[in-house]
Amino acid sequence: MIVKHALSRTVFAALLVALASAIAASMARAQDPLPSWNEGATKAAIIDFVMAVTDQSNPDFVAPAERIATFDNDGTLWVEAPHYPQIMFAVDRVKAMASDHPNWTDRPALKAALDGDMKAFVETGNEGLEEIILVSHSGMTTAEFRKLVSDWIGTAEHPKLKRKYTDLTYQPMKELIAYLRGNGFKIYIVTGGAIEFMRPWTETAYGVVPEQVVGSSILTEFEIRDGKPVLFRLPEIFFFNDKEGKPIAIQRFIGRRPIAAFGNSDNDIPMLQWTLAGERRSLGMIVHHTDAEREFAYDRESVVGTLSKGIDDAETGGWHLIDMRRDWKRVFSFEN
Amino acid sequence: MIVKHALSRTVFAALLVALASAIAASMARAQDPLPSWNEGATKAAIIDFVMAVTDQSNPDFVAPAERIATFDNDGTLWVEAPHYPQIMFAVDRVKAMASDHPNWTDRPALKAALDGDMKAFVETGNEGLEEIILVSHSGMTTAEFRKLVSDWIGTAEHPKLKRKYTDLTYQPMKELIAYLRGNGFKIYIVTGGAIEFMRPWTETAYGVVPEQVVGSSILTEFEIRDGKPVLFRLPEIFFFNDKEGKPIAIQRFIGRRPIAAFGNSDNDIPMLQWTLAGERRSLGMIVHHTDAEREFAYDRESVVGTLSKGIDDAETGGWHLIDMRRDWKRVFSFEN
Repeated sequence: MIVKHALSRTVFAALLVALASAIAASMARAQDPLPSWNEGATKAAIIDFVMAVTDQSNPDFVAPAERIATFDNDGTLWVEAPHYPQIMFAVDRVKAMASDHPNWTDRPALKAALDGDMKAFVETGNEGLEEIILVSHSGMTTAEFRKLVSDWIGTAEHPKLKRKYTDLTYQPMKELIAYLRGNGFKIYIVTGGAIEFMRPWTETAYGVVPEQVVGSSILTEFEIRDGKPVLFRLPEIFFFNDKEGKPIAIQRFIGRRPIAAFGNSDNDIPMLQWTLAGERRSLGMIVHHTDAEREFAYDRESVVGTLSKGIDDAETGGWHLIDMRRDWKRVFSFEN
Repeated sequence: MIVKHALSRTVFAALLVALASAIAASMARAQDPLPSWNEGATKAAIIDFVMAVTDQSNPDFVAPAERIATFDNDGTLWVEAPHYPQIMFAVDRVKAMASDHPNWTDRPALKAALDGDMKAFVETGNEGLEEIILVSHSGMTTAEFRKLVSDWIGTAEHPKLKRKYTDLTYQPMKELIAYLRGNGFKIYIVTGGAIEFMRPWTETAYGVVPEQVVGSSILTEFEIRDGKPVLFRLPEIFFFNDKEGKPIAIQRFIGRRPIAAFGNSDNDIPMLQWTLAGERRSLGMIVHHTDAEREFAYDRESVVGTLSKGIDDAETGGWHLIDMRRDWKRVFSFEN
């Protein structure tokens, strides 16, 4: 009877410990705002920063209205390799429009796109890039363009990963956005891509509303057609929101200096410099694509998201490198 | 005793009625979201619109995220006569800078400004206007410009009304902003004026944060000076946010079509047309300056806020005219 009693007490105590551990682990999971990030210096830097700027008793406290965070998109929030999704959209548009434009086969960039020869297309450089963007993104109203983008993003698949592009958004970065938003941050996407290519789907993908998307734009004109006003898209670049353009556009659109900025290429450095030069405590990070297995590995020699100065100057510049392979427990939400 | 009793009952009843009336009147005042507006068609149109788009059971219901309202500033939210306040700022800047620029007296617009001869300045037309804006608004960093504006707006007085410009904001329009905001609207200022001239004071004056101000802009460049990144303002117009520019900028900055828009001149017509052509129920209004006694009376022949087509086309265009003299109980908050 004594033994039995003692045993039952041991069993009871063991069960209690097991239960408490399970509850504690579950609470830790529930409380971990960044479950897809491995423990380490990068995750700790994010959490330290957020704790400091949101703690009223901390000298680094920042008022909610000033908690602006800016995110590059291609390669920072979703896959950009081997070709920017917006270019794949342009290629598909050019293919759909080609029968009305027989002379396009005389233009090397457009011919390469029509042949599906992306290697030849890349060789046409920035000129070819601008050419394909202008012919595919203009000649329609903003409403018509919006529909073209929405239809494409709902069906198009990544050529290698065979998934819809909106499935190829990075789970750890989406957790980071949600974590910052939950701590009073206002999240802006500041992309080199076209602003009107982004807006139809950023709210669904990232919870970022149209007015918090800043990007490149082409000229538009206002006119009355059949008695109705329209905004018509013209084949001319208005503003290229990349490199030095990012801090300029941040000032123009937001009018406040961010306290956190996230990018993945040398083109994001001016945005990081501008963010980190503020008087408040700030955080700058660059996603380094180091994971050939789960995503892609590229940096200095890549044609998309070239990253070289961003690695070499990280320490003097004061930004952190996010090592995708080391820092991310999972890359995409569909992974187990 | 019967008489006395009857009297006291009458007195009691009368007191009760008086008390009830006082309470009712006080409640009506407390519940009136637009106390500085006279009762009438204009006020009723505003309230009808807001009630409809915020009532989930109404077919005209609009989801909160889509409740965007845009306001012109000069002549719509504050006094613009006899000269736009931003021009008075430019004149004061030119005077302060003149000793470093002896050759400015050779340029008619700048000479007129230095002489304080606003009649001669107005005669130099849009060219003179652009010239004085460019010399006074460029050649410094965005941070330096912000300080110049803040210092000026804190001290400068209207030449005729002898009050600070921020005291010359229209009380009925501020009530309208507060009423719309209280009903889930997001308020944007969409001004022909310079975006960076507005942002230092719109939050204090109207509760409109910097990222909800859309305006004209000059070119800026990003550069590293003494190891620190700066945004430097260049003497070249980047975007003129007036007339057809307003709907274009609304699309670029906000990416949603407003459901309510307020202006005061023919230059606001494209913004009203764009707003009223949406599929949702919408409201467009133009402030008509009809009150020479409390403010100014001007329209077709005015050099500021020219309003002609806005009056003639109101009915076909579908916008309402706000008759300042008839519709506004008071114009400024300092009135009794």
